[in-house]
Amino acid sequence: MTERLVVVGGDAAGMSAASQAKRLAPDLEIIAFERGDYVSYSACGEPYVMGGEVAEVDDLVARTPAEFAARDISVHLRSEVMEIDLDRRTILVDSAGDRSEIGFDYLMYSTGARPLRPPSVAGAEKALGLRWLNDADHLRELVDRGTRKAVVVGGGYIGLEVAEAFAHRGRNVTLVTSGEHVLTRTLDPDMGSLADAAVRRLGIELVTGVYIDTIEEHEAHGGGHDFLGDVVVIGLGTSPESELARQAGIETGVTGAVAVNSFQETNQPGVWSGGDCAEATHRVSGRQVNMALGTVANKTGRVAGTNIGNTAVGDSERETFPGVLGTAITKVGEVEIARTGLLTGESVIYGYEPAVGTVTGTNTAGYWPTATRVDVRLIADHISRRVLGGQIVGGPGSGKKIDVIATAIWAQMSIDELAWVDLAYAPPFSSVWDLIHIAARRAAGRQLS
Amino acid sequence: MTERLVVVGGDAAGMSAASQAKRLAPDLEIIAFERGDYVSYSACGEPYVMGGEVAEVDDLVARTPAEFAARDISVHLRSEVMEIDLDRRTILVDSAGDRSEIGFDYLMYSTGARPLRPPSVAGAEKALGLRWLNDADHLRELVDRGTRKAVVVGGGYIGLEVAEAFAHRGRNVTLVTSGEHVLTRTLDPDMGSLADAAVRRLGIELVTGVYIDTIEEHEAHGGGHDFLGDVVVIGLGTSPESELARQAGIETGVTGAVAVNSFQETNQPGVWSGGDCAEATHRVSGRQVNMALGTVANKTGRVAGTNIGNTAVGDSERETFPGVLGTAITKVGEVEIARTGLLTGESVIYGYEPAVGTVTGTNTAGYWPTATRVDVRLIADHISRRVLGGQIVGGPGSGKKIDVIATAIWAQMSIDELAWVDLAYAPPFSSVWDLIHIAARRAAGRQLS
Repeated sequence: MTERLVVVGGDAAGMSAASQAKRLAPDLEIIAFERGDYVSYSACGEPYVMGGEVAEVDDLVARTPAEFAARDISVHLRSEVMEIDLDRRTILVDSAGDRSEIGFDYLMYSTGARPLRPPSVAGAEKALGLRWLNDADHLRELVDRGTRKAVVVGGGYIGLEVAEAFAHRGRNVTLVTSGEHVLTRTLDPDMGSLADAAVRRLGIELVTGVYIDTIEEHEAHGGGHDFLGDVVVIGLGTSPESELARQAGIETGVTGAVAVNSFQETNQPGVWSGGDCAEATHRVSGRQVNMALGTVANKTGRVAGTNIGNTAVGDSERETFPGVLGTAITKVGEVEIARTGLLTGESVIYGYEPAVGTVTGTNTAGYWPTATRVDVRLIADHISRRVLGGQIVGGPGSGKKIDVIATAIWAQMSIDELAWVDLAYAPPFSSVWDLIHIAARRAAGRQLS
Repeated sequence: MTERLVVVGGDAAGMSAASQAKRLAPDLEIIAFERGDYVSYSACGEPYVMGGEVAEVDDLVARTPAEFAARDISVHLRSEVMEIDLDRRTILVDSAGDRSEIGFDYLMYSTGARPLRPPSVAGAEKALGLRWLNDADHLRELVDRGTRKAVVVGGGYIGLEVAEAFAHRGRNVTLVTSGEHVLTRTLDPDMGSLADAAVRRLGIELVTGVYIDTIEEHEAHGGGHDFLGDVVVIGLGTSPESELARQAGIETGVTGAVAVNSFQETNQPGVWSGGDCAEATHRVSGRQVNMALGTVANKTGRVAGTNIGNTAVGDSERETFPGVLGTAITKVGEVEIARTGLLTGESVIYGYEPAVGTVTGTNTAGYWPTATRVDVRLIADHISRRVLGGQIVGGPGSGKKIDVIATAIWAQMSIDELAWVDLAYAPPFSSVWDLIHIAARRAAGRQLS
């Protein structure tokens, strides 16, 4: 008898799982339900559709339902899963008001995350945000139709990218954040001030330290300030879509996201999860975290799919998801911003004694005509010598250097070793001592008081 | 009584050693002798002076003799060390015909390398090359004064960079190499063919598989071909300047370069060496190698200087140079070329069973407007799973990814681990699965026959 995998939510994690399960278990029937209008798309590309770098939302779609159908994976759009019944092994699906019950043998729960709309912000639930591809289209249309002034609430990645998209289209933008700086969850405060400067250099009016408590269609208010615009967009981070799972008896963890083991299986046999709705283990802190990152969604989806496929064909081999470092990158104009591992403050919270090394240099040899400023920070544990984290803010080519730091952390390299790794050098690419070497040497030599 | 360090050869290794020794042993008298007109310069920048990207040779000088004098390090230019007498602890120096004898307590032997002039190539010893800063100036002058057609002999880094410099100045260039492709010591043959294409796209006439046996002022001949130009430049690699050391009784190794231990000390007590004239240990093959790379020169010079300084102040602590991977990078037009560790053929020679994974992708998300082709190759040992080497040929931003592979090799990471490292992703910077992940997965899954 053919077994069936039902996929709840058809973006990166869900469709990676579907593809991988199909590869390993060609006879497995696979049906994916997605409440939006697209599956398998790059949410990370949305701000760039809005800003015009990417021509249309269709460019962000990695695979269409027809392409999945050709691989014998059935995709249903605009179909919301309303209930999961684990005893009867069925889900209840609503497609444009038509409800139907579908049985499953295996379930992949991959509902993603929704933009955070804090109850403390009046009107937040009605504010514009950037979640679906349609949102990117809608915001672009607003710009096309003559929006002159935008107010963006939130100083995280999405807030910054949306603000830059408006600025890129020549619109006036005010970016308001409650933080002392932008990207407070990404960068140490002094590194954040470099990001602030990059935002301001784009002509964006940046207002820090102001908590918006009321949002209306054309206004945002907070801390005695009134911000007026043709459009108000909110970008306050995300929250995992785990209610449906919780209602069904699938366990969620301390973060509110779905709890999974290292095989991406939930507490319910045959129910797997991954992506923005699920927890993952942070390799440095050892804690469970919930990170809405495309990299994590693709990897955890693939692991779940491998294990579902193997289970379906009776193969007892399991793939393990080895965890995350929270490595992430973005850019503000020409300034690249990246981080991995723990921030200085986080490393204290998790019981380390951070030895911090920072260097200001250039992205090429100093004499190269395009040399621009780069700041690199490395954080190590003074006792164990392990590298704990890194941050980079700098000119073209500097951001992806974060991957070297991530690889060092992954391998539990000591800060002393990192100072000597044989990294590549030529004048167009770096200084002869890479900035990572210098930051590592400084962190290694740091005497704690 | 004040002790004296004499430095023989004042570029990266020698002056790094001098600076570091001075830092640790401020009372140490330090005198450096350099037979050229500059100390402490970026030889790697010379082709770009010639090509015009860098305005003048002075831009390549990191520190002048006056700056060293301000740190109490005495520098003598145009002063060639003719003899080293280890019994009497003296050197014989020739400065414009004036000979003098100088005593030393410690000696840093850092004479660098000279362009290879094979005896099998008639006229090679008289051909133009690119070693000293003056050579870069001279070649630039030739271009300025109307050189229309250049013949460059040699398909290594220097040959390519010189050929590109001529092309960049709008001159006709023929590049002749005996190899099947350019960069045969840097890339596997099929990756080399991608570099060939990049050379040709610059308008350079590339002739492969032809061994030049005769060079004259305006002609190069070989294999029945005659190549005519206003200028002929040779770039056939380098040879370590170790004769002076050998004559003095300082041991040289299998490569012909000065043999050193991991503290950069030679077989002669109190005599240290580093940089292009010395050997280093390759961390993958375990063999002694001689690599003329600025990174290695700076690092080995610093290690020697630390150990000289510590010895001088009676501190028994020693710093260790941890070895090399041969990581290197260059560019041909907009195409970046990088390698680290072993090539496929080398890994067979050293007794490994190479599992090779290669991927062709883009340097950004595929839908990003500036997406350009990138090829990444990873080589692992099928038995031990260790990553052995990597090669990259691709568009802007791709070359320095080699550092991730270098860090993985350095940490003895397995190819299976590398496939999951948490690397950074955003559409302007990479695909969501980094090309390193995909190449690693392919190498990991490779079944050997």
